[in-house]
Amino acid sequence: MAGSTFGKIFRITTWGESHGRALGVVVDGCPAGLAISEEMIQTYLDLRKPGTGMLVTARKEEDQVEILSGVFEGKTTGTPISMLVWNKDHHSTDYAEIASYYRPGHADYTYDEKYGFRDYRGGGRSSGRETIGRVAGGAVAMLLLQELGIQVEARIAEIGGVIIEPGEDYLDKELPLAAGDSLGGVIECRVKELPAGLGEPVFDKLDAQLAKAMMSIGAVKGIEIGDGFLAAKSRGSENNDAFVAKESGIEKRTNHAGGILGGITNGEDIVLKATFKPTPSVFKEQKTVNLKKMEEETLMLKGRHDPIVALRAVPV
Amino acid sequence: MAGSTFGKIFRITTWGESHGRALGVVVDGCPAGLAISEEMIQTYLDLRKPGTGMLVTARKEEDQVEILSGVFEGKTTGTPISMLVWNKDHHSTDYAEIASYYRPGHADYTYDEKYGFRDYRGGGRSSGRETIGRVAGGAVAMLLLQELGIQVEARIAEIGGVIIEPGEDYLDKELPLAAGDSLGGVIECRVKELPAGLGEPVFDKLDAQLAKAMMSIGAVKGIEIGDGFLAAKSRGSENNDAFVAKESGIEKRTNHAGGILGGITNGEDIVLKATFKPTPSVFKEQKTVNLKKMEEETLMLKGRHDPIVALRAVPV
Amino acid sequence: MAGSTFGKIFRITTWGESHGRALGVVVDGCPAGLAISEEMIQTYLDLRKPGTGMLVTARKEEDQVEILSGVFEGKTTGTPISMLVWNKDHHSTDYAEIASYYRPGHADYTYDEKYGFRDYRGGGRSSGRETIGRVAGGAVAMLLLQELGIQVEARIAEIGGVIIEPGEDYLDKELPLAAGDSLGGVIECRVKELPAGLGEPVFDKLDAQLAKAMMSIGAVKGIEIGDGFLAAKSRGSENNDAFVAKESGIEKRTNHAGGILGGITNGEDIVLKATFKPTPSVFKEQKTVNLKKMEEETLMLKGRHDPIVALRAVPV
Amino acid sequence: MAGSTFGKIFRITTWGESHGRALGVVVDGCPAGLAISEEMIQTYLDLRKPGTGMLVTARKEEDQVEILSGVFEGKTTGTPISMLVWNKDHHSTDYAEIASYYRPGHADYTYDEKYGFRDYRGGGRSSGRETIGRVAGGAVAMLLLQELGIQVEARIAEIGGVIIEPGEDYLDKELPLAAGDSLGGVIECRVKELPAGLGEPVFDKLDAQLAKAMMSIGAVKGIEIGDGFLAAKSRGSENNDAFVAKESGIEKRTNHAGGILGGITNGEDIVLKATFKPTPSVFKEQKTVNLKKMEEETLMLKGRHDPIVALRAVPV
Repeated sequence: MAGSTFGKIFRITTWGESHGRALGVVVDGCPAGLAISEEMIQTYLDLRKPGTGMLVTARKEEDQVEILSGVFEGKTTGTPISMLVWNKDHHSTDYAEIASYYRPGHADYTYDEKYGFRDYRGGGRSSGRETIGRVAGGAVAMLLLQELGIQVEARIAEIGGVIIEPGEDYLDKELPLAAGDSLGGVIECRVKELPAGLGEPVFDKLDAQLAKAMMSIGAVKGIEIGDGFLAAKSRGSENNDAFVAKESGIEKRTNHAGGILGGITNGEDIVLKATFKPTPSVFKEQKTVNLKKMEEETLMLKGRHDPIVALRAVPV
Repeated sequence: MAGSTFGKIFRITTWGESHGRALGVVVDGCPAGLAISEEMIQTYLDLRKPGTGMLVTARKEEDQVEILSGVFEGKTTGTPISMLVWNKDHHSTDYAEIASYYRPGHADYTYDEKYGFRDYRGGGRSSGRETIGRVAGGAVAMLLLQELGIQVEARIAEIGGVIIEPGEDYLDKELPLAAGDSLGGVIECRVKELPAGLGEPVFDKLDAQLAKAMMSIGAVKGIEIGDGFLAAKSRGSENNDAFVAKESGIEKRTNHAGGILGGITNGEDIVLKATFKPTPSVFKEQKTVNLKKMEEETLMLKGRHDPIVALRAVPV
Repeated sequence: MAGSTFGKIFRITTWGESHGRALGVVVDGCPAGLAISEEMIQTYLDLRKPGTGMLVTARKEEDQVEILSGVFEGKTTGTPISMLVWNKDHHSTDYAEIASYYRPGHADYTYDEKYGFRDYRGGGRSSGRETIGRVAGGAVAMLLLQELGIQVEARIAEIGGVIIEPGEDYLDKELPLAAGDSLGGVIECRVKELPAGLGEPVFDKLDAQLAKAMMSIGAVKGIEIGDGFLAAKSRGSENNDAFVAKESGIEKRTNHAGGILGGITNGEDIVLKATFKPTPSVFKEQKTVNLKKMEEETLMLKGRHDPIVALRAVPV
Repeated sequence: MAGSTFGKIFRITTWGESHGRALGVVVDGCPAGLAISEEMIQTYLDLRKPGTGMLVTARKEEDQVEILSGVFEGKTTGTPISMLVWNKDHHSTDYAEIASYYRPGHADYTYDEKYGFRDYRGGGRSSGRETIGRVAGGAVAMLLLQELGIQVEARIAEIGGVIIEPGEDYLDKELPLAAGDSLGGVIECRVKELPAGLGEPVFDKLDAQLAKAMMSIGAVKGIEIGDGFLAAKSRGSENNDAFVAKESGIEKRTNHAGGILGGITNGEDIVLKATFKPTPSVFKEQKTVNLKKMEEETLMLKGRHDPIVALRAVPV
């Protein structure tokens, strides 16, 4: 059943897998007249690109976006914007081993259970590369939001249990990372200058839509709005954001609600946290099942991802 | 913009507000031939009903469900099932004070910002009574799931920071509840005997849909699947659920993933946690704004909800 | 699978069947602040009501609408508007015969094939009474359109092959109606004062949406926009609507297109025709199958609908 | 607002315009394991391609489809299938004249009214080339239907008022076509071997969905199911399809209904007619407005489409 479309008025449909010919997105419903270029979209794709930093993979990905439709003379026309990124190195050859095992923590097993047939050369549609379409589509959304004066900021708030405060650089922190292993983390996202009144009760509340969007990202396992799980530990008298009268109108003394009340923006910053599990690709021996023999084995799964994992872990 | 419909194949549309004539739901897409009765639905509505227990409100609600369509000779016909519950006491009269203030923590303010016009007699559509439609619709879903041998269980896992272990009764616990105040909490939900293969990547993944459904409930501020935020503190080698070969097929040694990998069920129990903020109705003085004078005041907001809050808090 | 919802921004969900307790609609997405009352909605339901005229049934239907939610102090609140009409006489008792035959031209057969289980007391969800929900929902839409200065007009354009010109009364026409039989007809609908620019290419074009809406009405078997099937007999040089320059802007010399070009309104009147097949309830012998014996029989099907059909046909 | 997606379970999203870089489609929800190749899809695109016949354009279009995702080792994987066709000759240069006029019968005017900005080099998204995405997506649907034994057939049933009977070749007919002009026509489509029970009352009835799908095609102005507009001229006793008992089950003596009763298939062939207006591109002088002077002019609009129109008309 179809599941690769998100949104109603502004809508994205993503496609593509890690070892296919390309990945991309169709953005439908973008207003006409918005200034847009491949360079503008590329900026966001470059942010997505695994880098050479200590904690991120060094895979060389030259993900150059191409705009195929919906833009004329540097402006959107109101018709669907189709964008793609070619997979440069999808002609790999040696997948014999990877085809014989379900990699722990990966979706190999569930894809086989669901579809009965799987592109075993990699994560396929469950690969992190699937987010290329989201990023390109999100870049168009960002250009629109910028026109409206709305700002979206995100930062790493926690890695492997170590809290990163605003302004701190995680490279200055001592992280509990063993060689060959990976770490989970938490992202904090803030949306600023959103007007009050956005969100559609009762099922399409803004926090519900954000939760769906974030949880649909491969590695995300938890979502918080405002105080989130801390709210469970507080009292009503503490958690309620008192109203104050300002010349500019009514404001809130605190923002425990994270900018959303009753599923509708209240004019304060939206504050959202998402937790990412550690990437399941590790450079260590793991227990899994040899599908041909239907026997358990303990092995270090080789294949395409190994060098990445190595690079990810080694610097520590 | 419409936002009161959830689901595609099996779909619910809820309606109604706290002080209107009735609340209800239309369940569309339920297969024909399912045994169903008002008594079966009522069982679930009675569970929803605020009770007389120590920690829950004692409001007397006689929420009797009526089935108006879609059922013939005790079975569903495949056509929409319309159900409603009449509001018994919606003819209240004295709302002068409540209309002059935005209650802190309630959605009064955001509804006014969004719609410019509000049924000020209570929470309206943002009231907890809105969940009546969800519960009646969910009851039909439960009857369907039971036919398929699938079980759904939920329990209180935390109140006001106090952990409630499985098997424990929260009534035996000492809770940090001051008179007139309310507490937040965490619900844990488990879905058992679900087959592997359910969920639609990449946006309609099962965890994404569950996150949206849960976050759309009024007081929910956080969601976790499996280890959730704990996953952010762990390593890949710890977080990966190793595969084991059993006679019955492939199983998982652990269930850090909470039953969902790549957005698709893996055959293990789904484990989901949702955090509820403390109910904003408290029996204490709070700072808010007098809308007629546009001045700040500190007062204990009276009105319909007071006795409930009192009862909620007093027993402690 | 769910199919009783129409629309995205302004959305209606209908429910109910001919012999159930009630029929109704949930209107979701209606803007707040619209003046509305049961009397306003009733005006449209009264138009729907089978009357005592020569060509329409005389069934006595007291379809009084009740508004259950979404309205406060005479205005919409922006939340779902739930409306229902009670079925007064759904406690009929003698359905033994009607349960044993599929009535020709009715949907008894296809409902049984689809659902395997059917409310055999009447047409159920396929009855003409199903349109009660559409009319109540449409009445809200009409109130909205009136606020915007948009007019919707409809008239009978053809009955049983006899053309009714604008301004003519079909009661003055000689119709080819034999006793006990029914006739088909064509409705012409015009929408005036619509601004140019409405409609969403390429699948949600306005003509495509109108075609779906009209064809979803029980007896409709054909749809035309503008010249419709006549366009198939014309040449491009005749069919193209030439542009003319007026002080007020660009207008069209003719309206062969029926107000829609490329799926988008062009500022001219929308002209739409829908053909209705003759009602299948006739007071004559027909061939059908006795489901208990699985044998063909020729009989006049009695039951609830007979008097209606008789009244419909007798006056001729 | 987004409008380029059709379908729920099996869903297509099309993109692209006549003078952009490419056109294409994303097919989402196709089951895994279906044999598929670019050659299979190309077969259908070749049928779409304007040919060299007397009545069709001779534009040389080398529309070679490329499959970019969703297929592995010759089979669908269950993930989105992205397909595209490159526009070979989109680098045309002289559009000065075409930008200054709204071509009568084309959607130039309504696109400008809606979007305020238009790719004036051709029809853009309203061009007939837009159907490339539909055809590629429809080809996947056809492969699926073939697996299920369902056949879809279409033929020209009328051109310029001349009826083409089944088995007849329109090339043998004398058509009323003047030089430089174009003709409208009617297509008849039959779907065979569909099981009874398909279609979702009351808004997603199968005839309603088919009407929407067909009416969303650029030039379609009318739709009929079964007897269609003829049903308006008949009596109930004639129009009802009598049931007969066969060993294989219940059948219908006639098929006035065109295979659909109450919006649900009844096991007979679906019979659908769609009327196409004459293509608005004609090789004759027409009245339109010079947008720069805002004055009426009578001229033969040159530009990209002229040679096509010439070829279309010349042979007569």
